[in-house]
Amino acid sequence: MRLHHVGIAVEDLEEAKARYGLLGFGVVAEGEVASQGVRVALLRGEGETLLELLAPLGQDTPVGRFLVKRGPGLHHLAFATSRIEEELARLKGVGARLIDEVPRPGFGGHRVAFLHPGFGLGVLWELVETEGA
Amino acid sequence: MRLHHVGIAVEDLEEAKARYGLLGFGVVAEGEVASQGVRVALLRGEGETLLELLAPLGQDTPVGRFLVKRGPGLHHLAFATSRIEEELARLKGVGARLIDEVPRPGFGGHRVAFLHPGFGLGVLWELVETEGA
Repeated sequence: MRLHHVGIAVEDLEEAKARYGLLGFGVVAEGEVASQGVRVALLRGEGETLLELLAPLGQDTPVGRFLVKRGPGLHHLAFATSRIEEELARLKGVGARLIDEVPRPGFGGHRVAFLHPGFGLGVLWELVETEGA
Repeated sequence: MRLHHVGIAVEDLEEAKARYGLLGFGVVAEGEVASQGVRVALLRGEGETLLELLAPLGQDTPVGRFLVKRGPGLHHLAFATSRIEEELARLKGVGARLIDEVPRPGFGGHRVAFLHPGFGLGVLWELVETEGA
């Protein structure tokens, strides 16, 4: 697989967009994922891997709780696959603990699924389904 | 710039190499950076962005202290540049706090420099000098 994006928890989306702008990363998409209580800005630099800035819509949301517990910073790694169900089944077969047993709609219309960070050795792994991965 | 690699703090390098192997990432280089007290495994998947697994050689090292404080997990983001001094000067000029005022030798013969995570809004940023970036 390849690294599709790195998720980053931020307190202030505008501040974070400006800060990553200093590294040449610009917004390619922005919007809310209401079911996750998060506002997302997807940034692209000169390379293929994107940065996904995540600002919580409230404290009692997954990213809101992350910020309270750990502060702003690196949140997850997302890997691209063209066959998400197949990959989930394969990873489950080698012992992965899945947060999402079935893919759910993620930002930008992609189907996504998260794995338990215990399986990622402290890293929250996400699978993102993309055409041709 | 583009994302060159994601640094990940791990407790057991062999276990981590095997775990990321499940995502199709394989070791392209491995060795110690004695000055940082760390053993490094650089992994490549199908994409351009690498994963850099970091296992401390002792507890009283930067990564050793990180593990004690935060546990294993995402450690830093490294961005590629072909002109590291120029980029450091530019970022300092817009208010960046630099950990390394001058580049130092990093893993794989690259010159690297770290910025203070306060400037990265909780994310430790590294610049890596690569040919053609």
